[in-house]
Amino acid sequence: MTHTSPGYSVTLRVGLTPGERTATDLASAVAAAGASVTALDVTESTPQLLVVDVTCDTTDENHAERIRESLDSAGGYDVRKVSDRTFLMHLGGKLSVEPKVELRTRDDLSRAYTPGVARVCLAIAANPEDARRLTVKRNTVAVVTDGTAVLGLGDIGPAAALPVMEGKAALFKQFANVDAWPVCLDTKDTEEIIGIVKALAPVYGGVNLEDISAPRCFEIERRLRDELDIPVFHDDQHGTAIVVLAALINALRVVGKKIEDARIVISGVGAAGHAIIHLLGAQGARDIVGCGRTGAIHRGESYADEHRQWIAERTNPRGLTGSLAEVLVGADVFIGVSGPNILDAEEVSRMAPDAIVFALANPDPEIPPAEAAQHAAVVATGRSDFPNQINNVLAFPGLFRGLLDASAREISTELLVAAAQAIADSVSADELNSSYIVPSVFDAAVAPAVAEAVRHTVDAQRAVVSSAGRRSGTA
Amino acid sequence: MTHTSPGYSVTLRVGLTPGERTATDLASAVAAAGASVTALDVTESTPQLLVVDVTCDTTDENHAERIRESLDSAGGYDVRKVSDRTFLMHLGGKLSVEPKVELRTRDDLSRAYTPGVARVCLAIAANPEDARRLTVKRNTVAVVTDGTAVLGLGDIGPAAALPVMEGKAALFKQFANVDAWPVCLDTKDTEEIIGIVKALAPVYGGVNLEDISAPRCFEIERRLRDELDIPVFHDDQHGTAIVVLAALINALRVVGKKIEDARIVISGVGAAGHAIIHLLGAQGARDIVGCGRTGAIHRGESYADEHRQWIAERTNPRGLTGSLAEVLVGADVFIGVSGPNILDAEEVSRMAPDAIVFALANPDPEIPPAEAAQHAAVVATGRSDFPNQINNVLAFPGLFRGLLDASAREISTELLVAAAQAIADSVSADELNSSYIVPSVFDAAVAPAVAEAVRHTVDAQRAVVSSAGRRSGTA
Repeated sequence: MTHTSPGYSVTLRVGLTPGERTATDLASAVAAAGASVTALDVTESTPQLLVVDVTCDTTDENHAERIRESLDSAGGYDVRKVSDRTFLMHLGGKLSVEPKVELRTRDDLSRAYTPGVARVCLAIAANPEDARRLTVKRNTVAVVTDGTAVLGLGDIGPAAALPVMEGKAALFKQFANVDAWPVCLDTKDTEEIIGIVKALAPVYGGVNLEDISAPRCFEIERRLRDELDIPVFHDDQHGTAIVVLAALINALRVVGKKIEDARIVISGVGAAGHAIIHLLGAQGARDIVGCGRTGAIHRGESYADEHRQWIAERTNPRGLTGSLAEVLVGADVFIGVSGPNILDAEEVSRMAPDAIVFALANPDPEIPPAEAAQHAAVVATGRSDFPNQINNVLAFPGLFRGLLDASAREISTELLVAAAQAIADSVSADELNSSYIVPSVFDAAVAPAVAEAVRHTVDAQRAVVSSAGRRSGTA
Repeated sequence: MTHTSPGYSVTLRVGLTPGERTATDLASAVAAAGASVTALDVTESTPQLLVVDVTCDTTDENHAERIRESLDSAGGYDVRKVSDRTFLMHLGGKLSVEPKVELRTRDDLSRAYTPGVARVCLAIAANPEDARRLTVKRNTVAVVTDGTAVLGLGDIGPAAALPVMEGKAALFKQFANVDAWPVCLDTKDTEEIIGIVKALAPVYGGVNLEDISAPRCFEIERRLRDELDIPVFHDDQHGTAIVVLAALINALRVVGKKIEDARIVISGVGAAGHAIIHLLGAQGARDIVGCGRTGAIHRGESYADEHRQWIAERTNPRGLTGSLAEVLVGADVFIGVSGPNILDAEEVSRMAPDAIVFALANPDPEIPPAEAAQHAAVVATGRSDFPNQINNVLAFPGLFRGLLDASAREISTELLVAAAQAIADSVSADELNSSYIVPSVFDAAVAPAVAEAVRHTVDAQRAVVSSAGRRSGTA
């Protein structure tokens, strides 16, 4: 599959001699070289010379060079420049830090800075909780990574991870007006990362852990949750789990099955798989089988890795053993958070009727979605070029919007379930069908709905705590 | 001295009964209570009721309450609300993180985020120097504090320091279009701070250390300079030293003296005093005497503190001993970076003719400037309500603008001197006089001039290094 993608969009500036070649010739030549032409702009036109900017989506990073070569060998084209639109977009970084106050006059300066600022400092020193009112802590989330598990790229380091974290911060702002700041740490030491995030916490109202490899991500998240008084969330785990649960709620609606009765197989027992198992269990799923590279995780075996052991003890009630293909026979739901092309249509055909297949490995899913759809009733992937894109951007902006608004200090499982339910409910009964189980990532109503569900859950939990406190006489 | 200040500006919302009291009565009553009325807005006017917002500068944080009491006891005024304009300005924090790219469409998302961003990540992984081109590192400075020496407030902690760091970041943007981000660390451990800043470095093109108490600030700065490949600058030291040198260059011009011949006494041998001594020495000063609380630092004594020992070995060529008042006799220049009211007019009168007095302690200077002016030819303070305000904002924005533009990796003494000279030269020969030795903090030409001087110095040093490399055959 070699799709062209706007992620590989380039602009070629090409000179032509009128009478010899036309702009239309050029567009055809570029298309013939396998690109999708999206724009044609003539930037210079004289009787002797035509200069044309042709913008096109290509298939990979070497495709532009192949287009150039094919124009060169066709003759009559003078390729003057190839600009990569993706790189242009990233030039100089994707974020800016903007003052919300004007500092035009001496009086402005006296209030925003010395001497006036001293009073604000003293107010916070006297009442630390005021930091949530009088500083950026009110609205700011740290996007923390060590660059060890970035996209599908692996351990590329903190500097190379920065473009992703900037993008994430841009999404936070765009979808939920959350100020997010990239924290790319030049260390892989678990204790050091924990210590650093704790030390940075005064500036932030929440922590979004991102692209930190397992198993370190488990320990880092657990410890930070215990030791900080702001919410800590590992998006690769819980963001994915929220959106998977949302999609599953709606997929089960489409096929008329209940989660309590569904036989669910999860391929991939790393960070994401672990969180998905946890959250589906909280929603009532009773028959989940996790599969690693060596097959089903089951009680009959003991695992050195504590997270696999956790899965073994809490899943697979029927004690299935064997390969993924074997345990998938008769299953209602397949959820893949593993690797590309590990499943074929024939294996899907042996699932229960009205099977649900979420093949979420990126960029290449566990099974090509068209192939899965031959036998499954509902198919979803992580890709934007198929229906039912399961994308964390549906969850994290609204989630943190709600957490910040509620000055939340922690994230409960109920809160994750509430967020998933809010995403699922963003698809109305009228809209719901096998090709539309999750809302579009551009649906502006999703983040506010998630935020509202989160605020409501935090408030309800506070009320319970406070009423329990009153009953036991300890306010 | 109880000045009113816009840093203590409040708005009182007051109800009056027409016929009984007028808005003019109210303004007079507020002025009689010692405030400076700056605005009067009628927000409601009916035959029965007049509601007036009176905005005024007050003298301190309790003054608004005293005004309310005096209106209450005068009668006929119903004070409904007192709003503190400084607190209003800080509400919700003073910074926002804004995307520089639009994420309106699927194509935008494909370029700014996955899948397009992966190529940008891989480019940086292959060539780390590209981070300065393709990420926020290009234009971003960390403003790092542990909250131990904030303004004149001392060790108020990292959360309470945040409003100052936000203000500093706003100034960076306003004056030099530098993106600055507050890093308020919840630790005072020297090694931990060093480790954290090193770990954070991938995101930043420079580090501005701020309000970290001595002597830890010396070690932290020295180590970070050695161990990082981005410039590290402790503003309380070197920012102050730059602006003091700039002011001194011009003050000496005014009185027609040379720095080589000047007898200079510096009161305060902490972080700022140390940096000033270093920088004035680099500019050619030969007769500097540093004074601590116990009097002149001199070679005849040995000091446990290594920084005092450094001063003892490098200053005070005439071996002066005794109190500040004693060593000040016959001196050409007094520079105070110590505490309030330690000097009187009589002591200034015993300085050399055409004496220069920089009394920089904040908010209350070493000597009231009007008193110093009785005998000194040039007087400067750190305050905004007297002429010749010596304020670091003249230095740090332009300095980092230049450093970022030049992708500088370190900060040399020559570079600090060049920045000082650029600030001094921002005052033309025509403008220069005893009340105008430094430009206004709002002079928009200063930061670009400083940036240009910095870029020029970095380039010149690179040329020297590169030519030396060629000569010795090691490129």
